[in-house]
Amino acid sequence: MGILERHDTNAVRRLHMNAPERLNALSDEMLAALKAEFETLQDDTTIRAVILSGEGKAFCAGHDLKQMTAGRQAEYGGRAYFKDLFDRCTEVMLAIRALPQPVIAQVHGIATAAGCQLVASCDMAVAATGTRFGVNGVNIGLFCSTPMVALSRNIPRKQAFEMLTTGSFIDAQRALELGLVNRVVAPDAVAAEAEALAQTVADKLGTAVRIGKRAFYDQIEMTAADAYAHTGQVMVENMLHSDTAEGISAFLEKRPPEWEQ
Amino acid sequence: MGILERHDTNAVRRLHMNAPERLNALSDEMLAALKAEFETLQDDTTIRAVILSGEGKAFCAGHDLKQMTAGRQAEYGGRAYFKDLFDRCTEVMLAIRALPQPVIAQVHGIATAAGCQLVASCDMAVAATGTRFGVNGVNIGLFCSTPMVALSRNIPRKQAFEMLTTGSFIDAQRALELGLVNRVVAPDAVAAEAEALAQTVADKLGTAVRIGKRAFYDQIEMTAADAYAHTGQVMVENMLHSDTAEGISAFLEKRPPEWEQ
Amino acid sequence: MGILERHDTNAVRRLHMNAPERLNALSDEMLAALKAEFETLQDDTTIRAVILSGEGKAFCAGHDLKQMTAGRQAEYGGRAYFKDLFDRCTEVMLAIRALPQPVIAQVHGIATAAGCQLVASCDMAVAATGTRFGVNGVNIGLFCSTPMVALSRNIPRKQAFEMLTTGSFIDAQRALELGLVNRVVAPDAVAAEAEALAQTVADKLGTAVRIGKRAFYDQIEMTAADAYAHTGQVMVENMLHSDTAEGISAFLEKRPPEWEQ
Repeated sequence: MGILERHDTNAVRRLHMNAPERLNALSDEMLAALKAEFETLQDDTTIRAVILSGEGKAFCAGHDLKQMTAGRQAEYGGRAYFKDLFDRCTEVMLAIRALPQPVIAQVHGIATAAGCQLVASCDMAVAATGTRFGVNGVNIGLFCSTPMVALSRNIPRKQAFEMLTTGSFIDAQRALELGLVNRVVAPDAVAAEAEALAQTVADKLGTAVRIGKRAFYDQIEMTAADAYAHTGQVMVENMLHSDTAEGISAFLEKRPPEWEQ
Repeated sequence: MGILERHDTNAVRRLHMNAPERLNALSDEMLAALKAEFETLQDDTTIRAVILSGEGKAFCAGHDLKQMTAGRQAEYGGRAYFKDLFDRCTEVMLAIRALPQPVIAQVHGIATAAGCQLVASCDMAVAATGTRFGVNGVNIGLFCSTPMVALSRNIPRKQAFEMLTTGSFIDAQRALELGLVNRVVAPDAVAAEAEALAQTVADKLGTAVRIGKRAFYDQIEMTAADAYAHTGQVMVENMLHSDTAEGISAFLEKRPPEWEQ
Repeated sequence: MGILERHDTNAVRRLHMNAPERLNALSDEMLAALKAEFETLQDDTTIRAVILSGEGKAFCAGHDLKQMTAGRQAEYGGRAYFKDLFDRCTEVMLAIRALPQPVIAQVHGIATAAGCQLVASCDMAVAATGTRFGVNGVNIGLFCSTPMVALSRNIPRKQAFEMLTTGSFIDAQRALELGLVNRVVAPDAVAAEAEALAQTVADKLGTAVRIGKRAFYDQIEMTAADAYAHTGQVMVENMLHSDTAEGISAFLEKRPPEWEQ
């Protein structure tokens, strides 16, 4: 078994981080494995939803501090190494939203620093009761500046600021209230809940979900007027798909659609 | 009675969608009627608040799928027709925020797809308990890409993404928690609640509300620094109105203002 | 005692507005005092958190309406005076986010108009139960256009619009639900709660909090891609601080850090 396991069920792929002894830290190896898997998924139309989960006591505890400390031995105190490390981490985070498939974080135990960023970067998240979320780098003198990019686009401003500057944790219920996760269930139900959510999405028309996900992140950073100009064109393209024509006809005729997808 | 009824009470105009047999779908006719009414309101300073409601079992069920399907008969599979349709729909949605009067959605039954977008596009919304909201186009293969422009500017990101990709519904209470509506009341109280809210707004100084509403949407898409530069100028113009001088004087003298407005 | 008192405890500075007979209105004198204190704080690395509070029945009731009315006697109905007044007010609001120290509003009684803006402009806020928040200028014909810049970046859109156009108040519990404040406690506990929160932040590595706060507001107005490019560089600089190296080493060695800061 590698550091990142892959399990396919129907059109759903589970990527399971498997470095429990390091709390699934985003080590050089884990980042490389995630990047490789995401590249594979980019053009795979047979997979229509992805679950990201972790083995052991934590979903993910952020960067690998031992590796980072070792990196200081490189020239100039590790400047180039750190630059490259954060670039690779950002590449993985941005790859999630660039994937054609919705990605669901299945979270348990702890999700801290870049591990919390991973949750925020996924399109949706299901959490086990008892999960603790934090962007607690400030506690060791390393402010979670890159995690806050994702976090501050998920939850209200003052609550994000508090988490970042106090380093304190929130529980799953609070994460739900703030918008960081979509659902909270018992720990022994979290895998099934993530799978049910993924299957729901995977059962939709794949082309519709793909163009919708892309348009979601494209439009959200535009002015409303620009967003409408863009998504209006997206709607036209969507309407012209033969599977969409079949979907609408089937609805009007009160029968299930027969999609080629 | 036409497809869109108009009732004025004091300075409040109710626009009541009256196509219950089609669940008040945004047909070509309904879009044209809404556009015409909004154009009339643009320069009407006697009307100071607007309520948008619907007859029958639904507030609005979105686009008229039969008309859309018929549109496929036009050349190139209806490409030009669909482009024009979505342009007209967007024009109506953007007209709501461009109106000088606050617009309140009075919602009951179901508000789906472009019907949910209509709720999100209004400045405020009052919902009856039992109302179900969804952007469920994905269920028939047509992702709600234009509705998401309005929805994703009303509710948190992950919750919008879930509604869009799962096609599942939320109830009125959840809509309130997420920020999609302002108030939830019993079905037999929703009209009165919308009217009370509209009357509250209509009783304010009209010029203040008009410049405030415009500034609200102008500033919200700017950086904070630009937003302050813009609204600072708006405040100066507001201060120089004679009715505002009277309003402040009346407050200091603990008497009701005598506004010319 | 002046109009704005200063009390230092460890690395926490309390700025206490002391014009209770005017409900701590943002008069010319109060704005000047706040500006002067914020300028002093800009380069003070011994102070690592700030609390803003008010004496008497109100936290702050907004602008000084008597001064504003007197301002109408200046030429052109006070146009230049009002322009200058709103410029000075905006300067104070933007100075809060430009400060290197996190600023916590300790709120009680009422926080209205520019007083509510002050709460929204602080990085965090602790409120006493019973506090009432409003952007109620519309009630006297002066729409709270500048306060809405801060408010609409703290709470959801429809809820901000309702407060602005109805002039109605929300209580502390609702402010917490909407994201306007971080915590609500009993009135006799609010000072201690604000102090505990400030002390928590002040005990972190000062350089980490300083670069984090600046990056927070810089990145939040960027696209996600730009925000990552910016914060990635911030993380590298943060990693290269000797105190951060010590913080990480101490964590790995399970001992308290010895920071020079």
